Amino acid sequence: MFIKIKGGATAAKGFSAAACEAGIKYKDRTDMAMLYAEGMCRAAGTFTTNVVKAAPVLWDRQIVSEKGAAQAVVINSGIANACTGEEGMRYCRQTAEAAAEALGIPADSVLVASTGVIGMQLPMDRIAEGVRKLAPKLENTIEAGHSAAKAIMTTDTRPKEVAVQTTIDGKIVTVGGMCKGSGMIHPNMCTMLSFITTDANISRELLQEALREDIKDTYNMVSVDGDTSTNATVLLLASGLAGNKEITEKGEDYLLFTEALREVNTALARKIAGDGEGATALFEVKVVGAASKEDAVKLSKSVVGSSLTKAAIYGHDANCGRVLCALGYAGVDFDPEKVDLTFESAAGTIKVIEDGVMLSFDEVKAKAILSQSEVTAIADMKMGDACATAWGCDLTHEYVSINADYRS
Amino acid sequence: MFIKIKGGATAAKGFSAAACEAGIKYKDRTDMAMLYAEGMCRAAGTFTTNVVKAAPVLWDRQIVSEKGAAQAVVINSGIANACTGEEGMRYCRQTAEAAAEALGIPADSVLVASTGVIGMQLPMDRIAEGVRKLAPKLENTIEAGHSAAKAIMTTDTRPKEVAVQTTIDGKIVTVGGMCKGSGMIHPNMCTMLSFITTDANISRELLQEALREDIKDTYNMVSVDGDTSTNATVLLLASGLAGNKEITEKGEDYLLFTEALREVNTALARKIAGDGEGATALFEVKVVGAASKEDAVKLSKSVVGSSLTKAAIYGHDANCGRVLCALGYAGVDFDPEKVDLTFESAAGTIKVIEDGVMLSFDEVKAKAILSQSEVTAIADMKMGDACATAWGCDLTHEYVSINADYRS
Repeated sequence: MFIKIKGGATAAKGFSAAACEAGIKYKDRTDMAMLYAEGMCRAAGTFTTNVVKAAPVLWDRQIVSEKGAAQAVVINSGIANACTGEEGMRYCRQTAEAAAEALGIPADSVLVASTGVIGMQLPMDRIAEGVRKLAPKLENTIEAGHSAAKAIMTTDTRPKEVAVQTTIDGKIVTVGGMCKGSGMIHPNMCTMLSFITTDANISRELLQEALREDIKDTYNMVSVDGDTSTNATVLLLASGLAGNKEITEKGEDYLLFTEALREVNTALARKIAGDGEGATALFEVKVVGAASKEDAVKLSKSVVGSSLTKAAIYGHDANCGRVLCALGYAGVDFDPEKVDLTFESAAGTIKVIEDGVMLSFDEVKAKAILSQSEVTAIADMKMGDACATAWGCDLTHEYVSINADYRS
Repeated sequence: MFIKIKGGATAAKGFSAAACEAGIKYKDRTDMAMLYAEGMCRAAGTFTTNVVKAAPVLWDRQIVSEKGAAQAVVINSGIANACTGEEGMRYCRQTAEAAAEALGIPADSVLVASTGVIGMQLPMDRIAEGVRKLAPKLENTIEAGHSAAKAIMTTDTRPKEVAVQTTIDGKIVTVGGMCKGSGMIHPNMCTMLSFITTDANISRELLQEALREDIKDTYNMVSVDGDTSTNATVLLLASGLAGNKEITEKGEDYLLFTEALREVNTALARKIAGDGEGATALFEVKVVGAASKEDAVKLSKSVVGSSLTKAAIYGHDANCGRVLCALGYAGVDFDPEKVDLTFESAAGTIKVIEDGVMLSFDEVKAKAILSQSEVTAIADMKMGDACATAWGCDLTHEYVSINADYRS
């Protein structure tokens, strides 16, 4: 009931974006972005469950929970503003105040987000200067959205954007967004920043509920390395400019909106997984036939997070024993002698375990299937009819290289 | 109250060992070992918590729980006999029967253990032939114990043996053992096989209790890669030949025995961590000042298991933000603004976080400290007085290389 369109965070009516080089930590690349809405938006957000929360997470969480409305987002890459104490909180306020002044809006309608190295303080003068550069550059174009998606990257190798359109109450409603990965990614929440915009007219309560429900099956099913970041943030701004009758209950209009939101967040979640640090392949794990949804989630996350399985995917090795092993330590009760396991990709499908016992399979065919850029493992637990899908990536030499000297 | 002595699994009175080339999977190296006791021993064991349990785990668990006695252990490396169904169970019985015949003892006093690739069936003819080769080679010498420790290695780079002596009831009591790591290592249980022998005279019940309590602070505090194996097994055999009065209650004698056992298992656990797949350094994480022991265990395990932290240790990078982040997602409540973090090694000590905020520290000194072969991170939570220590290793290119093509 939706179609994919070009663009990202500026696809929906009323949103513009800009990017600039602020010289925060990176050289010769953009490292700050701004999203801006013509009018006040309803704002929803979900944040990291890490006890150690970065300053911007605390700032945004307060605005979303107390006010539920916002008009701009200022994002920097390079430094995460985490483990920075009171100074870090002051920098959030100063960033919001600088944006408020440049844009002529209240400071408490400016959300902020940071990603990068933990523990360093932001160079506040350069952040403030960046904000002043960004405001006059704001444009309501696909290109401006694309520039913003590039500026928020850290070890990401490509910008990540998606947009879809659906029809609600006879009006075209757009949901679009951009996000960045790509290390310190793990469920609850992944380490990621994701910024979704929509022109849907929807109540603040339902906007928040739609997001809260949606992340369970999207971002929270992504694991790159098992590390739950201090900064993970998903923000969702709704301008209401599509002109549909306000969605205030969980009827058909709400369903249409959540379908479009699901599509955007699933696509972004997959992009994060496929662009995990050092990844050469997206690794998808589907668990079917689980006794409960909760079991299916635990099982699929356990496999997608297994270092040994991830290394085997990198080696294009159908090491099904490691998959079965990872199912086994998921903390879920099941009968190991019932499990079937299949690998699937663009190159075909191959069953490797039946009723818990490894089959004698065609290794050449298996290697071909596991050599694709997207590989899926499907585990049938035969314990019930619940299912879940998790996304990750392979574990590579490059992951180690990236993370052995990230700070230097 | 104990002294370290030379040797391993044959150090205690009454135990002999042998190794041979059975050609199970490896070429030009030993791949089978046998431990044998002159008389029937009391036997204790702890096993993997993985739902998927290898056949030898099921075999041993039954003997330990029903009989609590054993006289021999047959171990092979190369193939794990896991995910092998009924055929795998039959092979355990056949192995025990072959050993029983060769040694002239009952089959249900023969424990078996396997380590290696999951999913492949054992070549039963070669196993049986190996058992027949091993029996006449048994020797009660340090060298024979050393040969056995070498034969059980998989991706281990060095054999792992420890032995200590203490005095109980006026008699010299020896506790010794051997173990192998080194991938698929994670708490509850680690993937490891560990075989401890002692000549202490101790009741079956206290032997099992001593082991069960001990592994909580030793093997269960080791994590190499977060993967809990299908095969992890710790066996403890007591010959009683030291001649001390039987330990039947938790008095001073029991305490002396558990101290010696703790020393052996701690040393072996550290050896497993330091020889984790691809490791260049042992990474020790001490959490102090936690609100409870349970919290301290969770916090230390979380840090030692963090891929990002492990990669930073490999890069000799004092990336303290990652440590604080890993504390934060341990699932424990604490005040991030109280935490102190210090790195320590043979090259010195450096405090990098105080009250949750990163200090401006000497990066050259930090790099020197983190470049040692054993590095310790000490986190003071300032929430109480509980503490715990976990052991792991750095995450390296070599880990990925080993695991990307382990089966081939």
